[in-house]
Amino acid sequence: MTPLVLTTYDWVPMPPRGFVRDLRVRWALEEAQLPYRVASTSFKERGAGHFAHQPFGQVPWLTDGDISIFESGAIVLHVAEKSTVLMPTDAKGRNDVVNWLFAALNSVEMAALPWALLKFTGDEQQTPGRKFLDDFLTLRLDRMEQFLANRAWLTNAFSAADILMSDVLRLVDRFDGLAKHPACRSYVQRATARPAFKKAHADQMKHFEAADLSQVNAS
Amino acid sequence: MTPLVLTTYDWVPMPPRGFVRDLRVRWALEEAQLPYRVASTSFKERGAGHFAHQPFGQVPWLTDGDISIFESGAIVLHVAEKSTVLMPTDAKGRNDVVNWLFAALNSVEMAALPWALLKFTGDEQQTPGRKFLDDFLTLRLDRMEQFLANRAWLTNAFSAADILMSDVLRLVDRFDGLAKHPACRSYVQRATARPAFKKAHADQMKHFEAADLSQVNAS
Repeated sequence: MTPLVLTTYDWVPMPPRGFVRDLRVRWALEEAQLPYRVASTSFKERGAGHFAHQPFGQVPWLTDGDISIFESGAIVLHVAEKSTVLMPTDAKGRNDVVNWLFAALNSVEMAALPWALLKFTGDEQQTPGRKFLDDFLTLRLDRMEQFLANRAWLTNAFSAADILMSDVLRLVDRFDGLAKHPACRSYVQRATARPAFKKAHADQMKHFEAADLSQVNAS
Repeated sequence: MTPLVLTTYDWVPMPPRGFVRDLRVRWALEEAQLPYRVASTSFKERGAGHFAHQPFGQVPWLTDGDISIFESGAIVLHVAEKSTVLMPTDAKGRNDVVNWLFAALNSVEMAALPWALLKFTGDEQQTPGRKFLDDFLTLRLDRMEQFLANRAWLTNAFSAADILMSDVLRLVDRFDGLAKHPACRSYVQRATARPAFKKAHADQMKHFEAADLSQVNAS
């Protein structure tokens, strides 16, 4: 079996560390206990080789034999399909997971990421547009709060969808956006307490720290 | 075979007409030539039955026998898997389509929708945060422009991914956001010239117009 190869940046600045999207893939691979190795691509110089794998010049991408997958959502789905740990095999169970996997990205992250980007800029000006985007996120969080109130996970058991949803909500929590949504916050805590998340997170931090050290040694 | 049932709102105000997400599903079903019927759920009163099918209280959802699918991305993927018209069956071709299907939603719509929502509010105040979101979209459009420059479709042939990507870009075009990206605009024109899009669009408009008429008749 050709080993899976996960490619991420060789280095990133401090702010995104722990949140670079290879984390979602590392986490899925650790949960599924699939063997993989990590390769690096230059953060500072993104050449034609990078764009050939990832049309937006971002990371991660995963190669599985002659297949190269460049969207983290598609990669997590692919990994989930290689294992029974992250997605049931019956049609109904599978459908539940796929629904929530898309919901994490297209219903919740769609509201969470712009909100987080605005927080990231440090711009706190309250314009009508800004209020509209804030309300857009609140609406989604209110629904998630109700949904998660009496559930441990999105579906019957922890799945690929929980990896994506909890990582999306983790970014909101980073900017204290879950203060009024305790069930969402507990869900993030429950998900990130899993050994597979902890390993994935530590591995990503170590990967970028190693680049810092090699720069120091080279200078 | 149980017929597919697509549920959308019974009525919506004028501004979103032609852009309600059941359009993506209608379009996919028309391309795949799968038989389906359209059912309605109240726009004004969203009850427990609605939330049981669609946890965010939105539309559409699709039922296929005992399976109910509530995210338009998941629905389009499901429809694509029922037909060879919207997705090749070989692993590599399938992977290309799934990659681009996620890219449409999670790389491009993630930047396009917040931008369009801000346009929709009519708020034109240029704050640093607003500029950041504008630049986020421009970055994505620049990459799409380069990618689409010498291609008719995202992959070897028109696919499910083109339905989602062109519909995402169509919303940008609505607010004249493709003026500096002619290849993206041509792509939208090419996609929306397809008979299946035209039928889907006309059917959505007629569906909501019928509700206007029945309100007039009832009053």
